[in-house]
This record gives sequence, C-alpha cells and structure tokens, in this order.
Amino acid sequence: MSPSSLASRDPRAALRLALAPRSIAVIGASDNAHKIGGRPLAYLVRFGYRGTVYPINPSRAEVQGVRCFTSLHDLPEVPDVAIVALAGDAAFAAVDECAQAGVALCIVMSSGFGEVDAAGKLREQAMTARARALGMRIVGPNSQGLANFGSGAVASFSTMFNEVEPLDGPVGIISQSGAMSVIPYGLLRARGIGVRHAHGTGNDCDVTVCELACVVAEDPELRLLLLYLEGIPDPWHLAEAARVARGRNLPIVALKAGRSAAGQAAALSHTGALANEDRTVDAFLAEHGIWRAQSMVDLVDTTQLYLMGWKPRGRRLVAISNSGAVCVLTADAASVANMPLEPLSDATQAELKAILPGFATTRNPVDLTAALLTNSGLFSAILPPIARDPSADAFLIGIAVAGTGYDVEAFARDTARFAAETGKPLVVAAPQLSVSDRFKALGLAVYPTEGEAVRALGQFLSHAELQQVVAVRDAQVALPVPCRPRVRRASILLDEAASLALLAARGVAVVRHTLCHSEVEARAAFEALVLLGVASVVVKGCTAEASHKSELGLVRVGLNAADAVAAGYREMQAAARNAGITLSGVIVAERVHGLRELMIGARFDAVFGPVVLVGDGGKYVEAMPDVQVLLPPFDAAHVERALRRLRIAPLLDGVRGEPALDVAAFCRCAVAVGALMNDADTDVTQLDINPLIVGARGAGCVAVDAVIYQEQP
Amino acid sequence: MSPSSLASRDPRAALRLALAPRSIAVIGASDNAHKIGGRPLAYLVRFGYRGTVYPINPSRAEVQGVRCFTSLHDLPEVPDVAIVALAGDAAFAAVDECAQAGVALCIVMSSGFGEVDAAGKLREQAMTARARALGMRIVGPNSQGLANFGSGAVASFSTMFNEVEPLDGPVGIISQSGAMSVIPYGLLRARGIGVRHAHGTGNDCDVTVCELACVVAEDPELRLLLLYLEGIPDPWHLAEAARVARGRNLPIVALKAGRSAAGQAAALSHTGALANEDRTVDAFLAEHGIWRAQSMVDLVDTTQLYLMGWKPRGRRLVAISNSGAVCVLTADAASVANMPLEPLSDATQAELKAILPGFATTRNPVDLTAALLTNSGLFSAILPPIARDPSADAFLIGIAVAGTGYDVEAFARDTARFAAETGKPLVVAAPQLSVSDRFKALGLAVYPTEGEAVRALGQFLSHAELQQVVAVRDAQVALPVPCRPRVRRASILLDEAASLALLAARGVAVVRHTLCHSEVEARAAFEALVLLGVASVVVKGCTAEASHKSELGLVRVGLNAADAVAAGYREMQAAARNAGITLSGVIVAERVHGLRELMIGARFDAVFGPVVLVGDGGKYVEAMPDVQVLLPPFDAAHVERALRRLRIAPLLDGVRGEPALDVAAFCRCAVAVGALMNDADTDVTQLDINPLIVGARGAGCVAVDAVIYQEQP
Repeated sequence: MSPSSLASRDPRAALRLALAPRSIAVIGASDNAHKIGGRPLAYLVRFGYRGTVYPINPSRAEVQGVRCFTSLHDLPEVPDVAIVALAGDAAFAAVDECAQAGVALCIVMSSGFGEVDAAGKLREQAMTARARALGMRIVGPNSQGLANFGSGAVASFSTMFNEVEPLDGPVGIISQSGAMSVIPYGLLRARGIGVRHAHGTGNDCDVTVCELACVVAEDPELRLLLLYLEGIPDPWHLAEAARVARGRNLPIVALKAGRSAAGQAAALSHTGALANEDRTVDAFLAEHGIWRAQSMVDLVDTTQLYLMGWKPRGRRLVAISNSGAVCVLTADAASVANMPLEPLSDATQAELKAILPGFATTRNPVDLTAALLTNSGLFSAILPPIARDPSADAFLIGIAVAGTGYDVEAFARDTARFAAETGKPLVVAAPQLSVSDRFKALGLAVYPTEGEAVRALGQFLSHAELQQVVAVRDAQVALPVPCRPRVRRASILLDEAASLALLAARGVAVVRHTLCHSEVEARAAFEALVLLGVASVVVKGCTAEASHKSELGLVRVGLNAADAVAAGYREMQAAARNAGITLSGVIVAERVHGLRELMIGARFDAVFGPVVLVGDGGKYVEAMPDVQVLLPPFDAAHVERALRRLRIAPLLDGVRGEPALDVAAFCRCAVAVGALMNDADTDVTQLDINPLIVGARGAGCVAVDAVIYQEQP
Repeated sequence: MSPSSLASRDPRAALRLALAPRSIAVIGASDNAHKIGGRPLAYLVRFGYRGTVYPINPSRAEVQGVRCFTSLHDLPEVPDVAIVALAGDAAFAAVDECAQAGVALCIVMSSGFGEVDAAGKLREQAMTARARALGMRIVGPNSQGLANFGSGAVASFSTMFNEVEPLDGPVGIISQSGAMSVIPYGLLRARGIGVRHAHGTGNDCDVTVCELACVVAEDPELRLLLLYLEGIPDPWHLAEAARVARGRNLPIVALKAGRSAAGQAAALSHTGALANEDRTVDAFLAEHGIWRAQSMVDLVDTTQLYLMGWKPRGRRLVAISNSGAVCVLTADAASVANMPLEPLSDATQAELKAILPGFATTRNPVDLTAALLTNSGLFSAILPPIARDPSADAFLIGIAVAGTGYDVEAFARDTARFAAETGKPLVVAAPQLSVSDRFKALGLAVYPTEGEAVRALGQFLSHAELQQVVAVRDAQVALPVPCRPRVRRASILLDEAASLALLAARGVAVVRHTLCHSEVEARAAFEALVLLGVASVVVKGCTAEASHKSELGLVRVGLNAADAVAAGYREMQAAARNAGITLSGVIVAERVHGLRELMIGARFDAVFGPVVLVGDGGKYVEAMPDVQVLLPPFDAAHVERALRRLRIAPLLDGVRGEPALDVAAFCRCAVAVGALMNDADTDVTQLDINPLIVGARGAGCVAVDAVIYQEQP
C-alpha cells in the first residue's frame, strides 16, 4: 500500500507513519550539521534511525557521508516522510512536489509563511489546500520538527539534542513552539528522566498539536504526555487525544499559556493564537481529565511522580523529618495543598514512643529530632509501624540536614524499601545535594525543599482525583466529542417578556407576570396577582432596545396598590420617551422574596461552543464576580459541584440559622439552560438570568429577569 | 571593664560581644570533632577565629591539639563567652558557674530542658532566673549555636559547615530551629552567595531570635537579614530590629511558619510557639517593612536580587527572548506578579524594527525569534535602544535554547553591560546549565524558568515598594515600639445601649435611638423619631446576656406605627422570657438606609496588643469574611489603603450608576476605634460594630449595632 493511499483512508495513518517512517527524505540537506538542513540528517544518523534517509541536494553527491540525490524523482522509492528545509518559494514548490509524488507527510521546517505576514499566510493556505487535495499531511511550516527517540526518527533541527544527550523514556512532549518542545525535555533529562517524543509543530497549518497528540497518545510505552499550548483552535482533537489517553490510563498535563491579557496579546503575535476565555479552558481541560499546569516548573516537577506507578487512594499526608521546622513547614504547605495531616493511630504512636526519645513527637508530623544524629537506627526503626498505619495515603520524608555522622545511605535504603512495601506516594525533601543524590539513586522522588515536594505531590494527587472523577463519568456516559461550532448569525435582543416566555417553555420557573399595554390592563394584572395572594409588585418597561433597565428608570419596585401600579405604568411610558426607546409593553410582576439572588448565564464560545455560567447574582456580578463555568452537556450533580466551588458555597446550606437554599431547583434550571444551549438548532446566542431568586429547600427558584439574544432569522 | 559589668549597663552589649568575643570557653570540650562538644572547637580552629579558645574538660590535658583546662576557675581570664556542651544536671551547674564567674553570655547547646517536658521547662526557667540575677545572658538551651564567619566565631555544632564550605558574605540568617539556620545557608552557598551569620538560638529562654536580630542588624557589612520564626513572642524586639535595619537600608525577609492550623499545632510541639493569628502577623511585618516569605524557596530565591544594589523605581517589565513562548509565559507570570508590560516607545520600536527581521515583535515582549540562531549579533544590537527607552523599570532576558551555533558568551557579556548601564533590576531565565553558568559567572541573577525569575523579581520589587512606604511613614512619624501588652482581666458584655453610648462618646456616629422601659416610653420614642422625619423604626431587646439577638427573636425591623412599636415592645419582653434572659430595656431606633453595610471589629492579641479589623459587614462576616487588619496607631490613609485591598473595593467608588460610598466617614470611625483600643488605660477588650451603615459620599456612616466587651472593674 502506498503512503498516500494509507493517508486517504485514515487521516491519522500518515501521522502514525511520521513517528516511525520507513524512509525520510531531507529536501535541502546540508553538509553543515549545524544548519537547519544539516541537523536532522546528523540526528537521524546519530540517534540510530533504522529506516532509510535520502538527502536531497542537487549540488552534492554526498552529504555528511550519506549518498545524496538530485531530486525527489531520483529516489528509489517514494519516502514516507519528507523534511523540507528550503527557503522561500523553493519550499512551496518542494511541498507541492512531495504531494504529487505521494509522500505521506511533509515536515516543513522553512519559515516565511503565516508567522511573517498576511502574504505568507496566504501562501501557507495555498500550500495546505494543494496538499490536502492530494492527501498529503503537513507538519509546519515553521516547524522545529518531530523527534521520536523510540524509533530514532529525530526529524528535528533543535539545538537542544546536541546540548543534552537524549535517553528514550516514558514521556512525550508536544508543542507548537520549538523552544517549549525542548525546554521540558532539557529540564526532565537534567532530572534523569527519559523522553521519547519532543515534537515542535510550528504554524499548525494542517496537523495541529492536538491532532498529533491523538497519535502520540497511542504509544503503548508512553506514561505521561505533556503539552504546551498557546491556543486551542481544535478542541475536538484535544478531546479525542484525551479519550485515547484515558483509555490507556495515560495522564496528560498541559501548560496552556495566554492566561492573562498580556499573555494573550503576546500569544497572538507569537503563534497567532486567538484568546480563549481562560476559565473556559480550565473547564474544558478538567472535563477531559487533563491537568492544567500553571508554569513550566509545574509541568516538569511532577513528572517523576507520574512515572512511579502509584494508585493513590486519598490525600492524607504523613510527614517524617529529623527537623521540627521541616515538620511545621510541611504542615503549612500541606494545608495550602489541601492535604490533611491526620494523627497516626494510638497503636502506632505507642510503638513510635517506645522507639523515639521522650521529646520526639509521634502524632503526625513525626519529628525524629536531632536524636537521629546520635542514633541513625531510629529512622529504620520507626518506618515499619508507620507503614502499617491506616491513616496515611502519602508520605513526605524530610532530611533537613545530614552528612558526616549520619548514615544517609541507610536512610535512603530504608526509605526505598518503605516506599516499595507501602506502594503509597512518597516524596523526599532534602536540601543538600550529597543527601538528595543518595535518595535519587534509589529511584525516589526528591525535591530540595518540603514546599516544592508537597506542591508537586498535591498536584499529582489532585490529578489522580480528577482522573478518577472522569473515569466514573466515562463509565456512565460517553462524553460527546465537541464539534466545530457553527458560525452564528448576528443576533438581536429579545424583550423581557419574550425572554421569560422562552425560559418558561424550557422548564425554567419564571416570575408570575403580565405584559400590559394600557393602564387598565396594568390595574387588572395587579388585581389578578392580589387574588393569588401577592402583596407587592414590580412594574417594568418591556423593551428589546435596552438590556440594562434600571439605569433608564424603567423599573419600579414594591408597588402595593392599583393606583400606584397605574402611575407606574405612566412612569414607564415617560421614561421610555426620555430614553428615546420603544416599549413593547409594561410588565406587572409579582415581587418575589427569596433567600439569595443567584445567576445563570450562557454564551457561545467561538471555539468551545456553548458555555454556561452559574454563580452569585445581583447587581455586582461584574464588579465582584463569583462564577463557575460549565460546558454542556452536564447534569445536576455537575452543577452542584460547581456551586460548591463558589465563594458563596457556605450559604447553600444556610448559615446563622438561615434555612438551606433550594439547590436542587437551581440545578434543574441550570441543566435546562445547558440543554437549551446544547441543542444543535438553538438560536439563542447569549442568555443572562439575573437574578434567579432561590428560596429555601423545597421552595424552588424563580427567574425574575432575563436578557436573551437570539440569532436573526 | 569586665564582661558582666558591660552586660549590666546595656543588655545588648553581651550579644554584640557574643558575635565577636575575645575569648570562648568550651565547657565539655570533646576530642571527637563530630561530637557536640567537639565540633565548635574544630570550627573555631578551622574557620580562623582570632580570639582565644579555652577547652574545658577535667579528664584531658589537650583536646584536638589545644591545651585543655580542668575548670572555668583554672582559666587565665574570665572568657567573654562560654559554650556549654554538657548533658543534664552538669549543664545546669556549668551555666550557674559561668554566671558566678562573670561570663557575659553562655551558649547552652545542651538539650533536655523546656523542649522535653514540664520539669525541663522549670529547670530552664530556674537557670534563666539565676543567670539574669547575675547579669549573664543565655542563648539556648538546646541551641545549635552562633556562627559568625566574619569574626570566625563559629560557636556552633551544625553538621552543615562540614558539608558546605563557608564563605563570608553579606547575608545573615537567624532561626530558633538549628535546621532552618543552616538550610538557607546551604541553599545560598549552592548559589555561590556568601553568608556571614547562621545562628540557631534554640529554646530562647533569654536571648530570642528577635533580640539577637537587633544586634545582627547592626553589622555594617550585612546587606540582607533572613529570619525563620515559628512564633513571635516578643514583637517589641522584632520592631527594634526592624528599626535598626531600616536605619541602614538593610532589608529583612522573614519566613514565619505556622500559617495554618496544622502548622501551628506542629510549631507548638516543636518550639512551643503559641499560635499568632496569621493575618495579624502579616500586618505587623508589613508595618515594620519586613517582607514575609511564603516558603524556603521564597526566602532564598530573591537573595541575589537584594545584593545587586538596585534602587527600583517601578514595576513595569520589559521582556526580551529568542522564544515567543517564553515571551507569552513571561507576560502571564508578570500579570500574576502585578508587573505591567507597557509598550516600548514608538522611537524604540522603530529602531528595533530596523535591526530585527520583519516577523520579530518589538512592542514588549521583544521576541528576537529563531533569527538569533543565524545572527547572534541581533542580541547585542537591540539592547542599546531598549536601554534608552523610558518605559522600562525592570528587565527579563529569556534565553530559551542556545548552545552550538549561538554566541552565548557574547549574550552574557552584552547582558551584563546592559544591566550595568541601565542600573535597573534585571533577571535572566535560562533552563540550560551551559547557558545559565555563563550568565552567572558575570554576576547576573539567573533562574531556570521565566516563572521563577518573574516571581522572585516581583517579590523584590514589592518589598522595595513596602520599604519605600515605610520610609515615608518613618519620616513623618516615629512608629511607637510595641510594648508587652498587659494581661487583661476577665471581661463582660455590655448591652447595646451601653455599647452605642461608649462609641458615641468616642466620636463614632450611632443610630438615633432610645432605651425604653415601658410601652408608653416606646410609643413616645417612636413619635419623637417621626417628628425628626423618621418613617420606619427597629425595635430590639437590649441585654447584656446575649450578643446575637436576631436568633433569639429580639429584633423587629420596619415598624412604622406607634401600635406596632408597642406590640414590638411586648414581643421583646416575651422573647426574653422564652430565652430566659433579662432585658435592660427595649431599644427603639431609626431604621437607617444606606448604600452598604460594612463592619469594624477590634480585639486584643495576647502578643501584638490591639488589633482592628475593617471589612464588609452584614450577617455573613464569618461565613464569607472580607476583612483587613490594622494595628493601632493608624490614620485615615491607612484605613483607606486597607479598604482598597478588600474584595468589595470596587463598590467604594460606586458601580452600575451607584454613588461612591462615604469612605472618609468610615475611615474616621475606624481611626476612632483604633484610638480607643490604643489607649493605655482602655478597658474595652473586644468590639464589633456590625453593621456600620455607610451612605453616599458626604452622607456619613452610622453604627446601628455594636457588641462591646469590657474588663470587669
């Protein structure tokens, strides 16, 4: 089967092939191993690529000792992969030639395309279109290349592989940015960790980081996949990669840059990444079980923990040190990382007390004190009782100071045995290199300080919890693959009556109200509410010409007589004239009393599609936001989990003698809004229910105002 | 002058002497240089102590090659300092003998005192009392010792000085914990930084960390003082140390552990540190210009920045890198650290555009792109225009990847020249050791990643700002030295009327109200308020037997007729009977309408004395606290700065068309409360004004409820 026919059947086939191709042509091969056209050739030879390499350079018979060809047509076969390292128009022509010849995938290292200017972007689009038409995939342009140290297919020009010797291992790294594909590589290699994949994809004109991740995640020997992202233009690919990874218990940790406005501006100039709303990114990654690292340190500091094969069961930490101060700092750090230090059992403490001097503390943290200096055997003696204690999910061993006079070798050996026997996550904090090296040599996870150790452990445990939650969800319901959201037409504001009607039709409880077109109707509406037991009403101008009504004098609250309502009707008409807007009527609505004003909002994200916000309501939602993001589809349990993350979470259960809120009713409303937004044919583009007044448990909740935008027909 | 007469005149004199004594006796000197009694002797010899060392050990004629004495009385002179390295009762006796002999200061390394049990604590107190009576100061017991590499007086038994070669330098470290006095030493030495002082004070029975800091801060060659604290039992000493340090522009950075409940529990078992309320510690340290590090990494990561001699003028960061991704991550990190990236001037950008390829970005961050690989000269060329640009206060240079093909030597040289010429703070991020080593060799501050570099720089700049604020304050008013707060007698609750009267007498505006003792009085009080234009009143049971009234049915709101008020009166009586409490009367008070309910609280901290809290008010102050701490004395500007740090800060200026709050009126109330609490003879022990209803600017604010506890006479 020819490569191109492979590619035409399965768009991923060419990507798989690119990670372990049978043959690679280097178009623009250079004899200088430090040039872009020379380095991949040098690497392929040096790192043991077992396929065939075809240097192509019309002016040479041999390049770096390898027989060189004049052109693609002179090769004895069509190569699976071609690296294009030519400049300018020559690159464009070469890519075209490859596509014509039936090459499965081109890695275009040449720059001068979309990253330069609009003309370059057009050239890039044309190149992509021609390749697509012929079934050839493109990585790049402006790509640093793909490096697979498993197959030796190191089709990359990164300087880093000269600087830091590679070692095949269980970690994969994918990044648009060349630098960010190899900086983690360098930092991990410095920690002694092997890296198999280090791919820098460049402009992502065809193959993107996320699509490549779908294939890299299939690698059966991979145990951790790291991603650097500036934008996520194709969440469907990332969702697929995450699904593949979850199927194999392969964790994915992503560093998504452009969190801040300044970062988003920089990302736009760098990779042209359009700003994703950051909290939406958070919600998307969590939904798919991907951990979001906050910095490069986060990205690499936990890596060793993922490679230990631990199956953590909880977050309860037991800390052991020969320094009381390390115990205190560990307790502080554990508190920040939400890892409780529960007391060891009485039985364990009794055993420890029999071993340790009287002034040592045995509760947890366990402080061996400086007594360790005079008796190195204490360390070995206390571990077995602690290993048997049921109150530990994870351990920190802090060796504050050691050296001459201490049996550090034994501490390390005992710790390694303890870790192996308990099988529980264990981190070591040791600021001295002479100490940490001994522990590292036995495969333990060692950090300079307790703060770094606890932070990394906390992140690892949190990710394990997230993976567990997502696995339970996966077992119940298949997460729909996000589709490319359709482009929405321009939208128009509905008036309040229409907005409330739309919500009511979807099952959201709305305030009892009447849209009135005369004072008489307004009086009648009031009287009708009085008959239903309503004491006080709100009168509002109903208009599709303004979404913020109170600023325009279009709201009167707390009217409790028909005359006042009639006067209110007249006021609304006057206020509308003043503001130069047309009313579709005047709403007379029950004045609702509840326990708390909450809100539900919804938007369409250009990339992620429907997004629902739930949170505290009222007039300060912009000034003091307290909201959580939900990505439809979601259920009531989802909504409740989001509510429990709000600042106002304590109020849900009632404080200071107040009754609990009707959280269930709120969740039903939010689920209804989620379903509405997730309807493939919904024409709602934006929705704000604020306030949604929530009563006591069992008393329900009521939307008393709503602003909805709908696509123009 | 004998040491003891010195000490009797000035309690600090003995401490100064202890840092550079003319003679040191080692009581319990051991020939084994790895024992507690042997190591100080070995260190004194090895690290060039220029005074006289007197080993004392009745069973030897010579110890480690030094002539040994039988007892203190056999010495040719009274030593300035004696190290006591004996066990148990012998230690106690030796200390006593030193005091009798006129030794200025004893460093008691022996353990078995207060850290062990109550009996040990009593022995420690007796030892201290006897030494005090004779004018001798004690460091310890359970002290690791004092190490001064400037004078060579390394009277310490720390293992660390064997493990990591010392180098005298501009940093001082003081800690109760021995480990925490040398872990920063080790981490700083690994960064090539010299450390002069590394003192581990132990149980602090006499000399405390904070008192020792007063003397260490006088060292004219010290440029940074680091403290590790678990408790601050003597804030007056810390205030004095901070004052001495500020007088010499010596920054102090403190790692105060025991932030969390778990950490406080661990600190109590470790050093017996009583929990300080953490936010009070924050406020105290800030007031005195001391930066609070969050972790050991924070403590040491900024050290090199303090030693550069920079005088930062602002926080605007300019970032320069050969990687766009580093630019993006730097922008994100700068955003977290509150460091704006302002665009370079048009003129600068024009100059940069003339130098860099068209696709490089020049706005800020400046992305040199991979073009640096083909032209190392670009780096050198862009620095002069950037150096001239006025929009930079500080710089980050990120060298993402470099090595063969790059002129790293020139990058480092150019960066060093640029840093020297601008004199502005500059940090370098370089993940490769081969690159970072070149920059470090030229004295630049280098971090592995941009995240770490920006975090450290941000902390340094924030501390510089804090020091500036405190210097301005110092120039205006001398900060009073905190005194030992007196022990307060048991306190009793005042009823609301008495509480409001107390506040009114202090100038706090309180709600118009009358304390009534009959229905007739209640009706009259209502009518009187109506005459003043009040439409609606609140009726409350007034009692000194309960502080939370609404839960007991002792509050009725919104009454607007005399009959209703009379009925309210009867209700209060009934509710009081139900609750089994006695009323001192019923309050009829104006119902106040304002824009926001805020709160002012006040407490006496057992250590720090009066503490005032200002924040958002209402019934959820415990469930969703939004408060800031102020330490009296403070002025209105202080209060306003605290209000601007609240979550509700946006509301102060009015949002969504609301008027601004009367912040000035609130500040006056808070200042009045601060003055009340700071009165030496105040008998108020606790105070809560909640709500303090704040009106629009100019409309003032009114205390509508107050709970005050007062010492029993």
